[in-house]
Amino acid sequence: MASEQFQSCIEACYACAATCDNCAASCLQEEDVKMMARCIALDIDCAQICRLAAAYMARGSEMSTSLCQLCAEVCEACGNECAKHQMGHCQACAQACLRCAEECRRMSTAA
Amino acid sequence: MASEQFQSCIEACYACAATCDNCAASCLQEEDVKMMARCIALDIDCAQICRLAAAYMARGSEMSTSLCQLCAEVCEACGNECAKHQMGHCQACAQACLRCAEECRRMSTAA
Amino acid sequence: MASEQFQSCIEACYACAATCDNCAASCLQEEDVKMMARCIALDIDCAQICRLAAAYMARGSEMSTSLCQLCAEVCEACGNECAKHQMGHCQACAQACLRCAEECRRMSTAA
Amino acid sequence: MASEQFQSCIEACYACAATCDNCAASCLQEEDVKMMARCIALDIDCAQICRLAAAYMARGSEMSTSLCQLCAEVCEACGNECAKHQMGHCQACAQACLRCAEECRRMSTAA
Repeated sequence: MASEQFQSCIEACYACAATCDNCAASCLQEEDVKMMARCIALDIDCAQICRLAAAYMARGSEMSTSLCQLCAEVCEACGNECAKHQMGHCQACAQACLRCAEECRRMSTAA
Repeated sequence: MASEQFQSCIEACYACAATCDNCAASCLQEEDVKMMARCIALDIDCAQICRLAAAYMARGSEMSTSLCQLCAEVCEACGNECAKHQMGHCQACAQACLRCAEECRRMSTAA
Repeated sequence: MASEQFQSCIEACYACAATCDNCAASCLQEEDVKMMARCIALDIDCAQICRLAAAYMARGSEMSTSLCQLCAEVCEACGNECAKHQMGHCQACAQACLRCAEECRRMSTAA
Repeated sequence: MASEQFQSCIEACYACAATCDNCAASCLQEEDVKMMARCIALDIDCAQICRLAAAYMARGSEMSTSLCQLCAEVCEACGNECAKHQMGHCQACAQACLRCAEECRRMSTAA
């Protein structure tokens, strides 16, 4: 499988995407949604770029490295915002984002 | 996690997406690419709708059921095409598509 | 261009996606975000499936018809929700969704 | 509309995505598909990142600038590859990619 070398990064990206999507939907159900506005916005940004990074890697795209570098930045922005909120979905999302940022960083410097 | 009940279907969708993306890229490197044209086209279709289905489920979207039903159809079309080709990437893709079709079918009838 | 016959539907899908994305972000800035939760959720669903439908059509995918049929349903659900809210971004979104639903319906019955 | 300032860039992105998707599908129908492999791969990369950039801009995402910068690079890579091939779909795609690269470059330096 051409994408074997990226396997753990692809998995981290998809895990992060699922956690961000769940966090966005859960934030929308919170009592004080207004406080979660930036978290929701970054969750959607992050879920989408994680899916794109995974797609590029799985196809062995020549642009994978650059995309993973940017994906790491979005994951960090999202993870830092999530970390400010005490809800379980935000804390879980902060962790998934941090892990994905690390994988993307490693991938973009190794390639 | 709001999306816990969909967890195995989400994972099957993302696993299928990664396998389809890999299959598309591998088909493009085959000696006889022309023979793989429909496989490549369906791989891309399938990877994209699998990612969308996973996103809908992880957000607990009210449209998840309908989308998973259609996703199952695309997975079957892609899996059946892949099954015709003897390359490892096509055989692996046929299996991932079949598994994802089953998960999506179960999800869309259970919901 | 293989996708010429779908041109007006592709354009309606992308216009709808942009309007839904804008509506989601604008709803997140409203004073009473809680009231907009379902609108935001459907905006994201709708923007994503519109982009996928446009991609399928532009590639002349054999699954375009089925996807446009479902896309029309999501557009209607989103448009009906948006129509309930008086803000300009919601009213504009309701119109774009309705127009896209019509185009997708026409496309899926004509094909 | 919050995304008005990005309107021409959003439109260029979606126009580029549609042209790339069409080019990918048309390349797959060419007699010598093998020669088109890199063009097809970059077409898919480019269509996907253009859609993501358009989504980010329409939502007024804080990460729009960085994404548009990368999108410009992918558009250039794709446009340069397309420009090598004489088919109408490749020449049209080269033009759409170049135009989108310019819009994204302008957007990412202006912001």
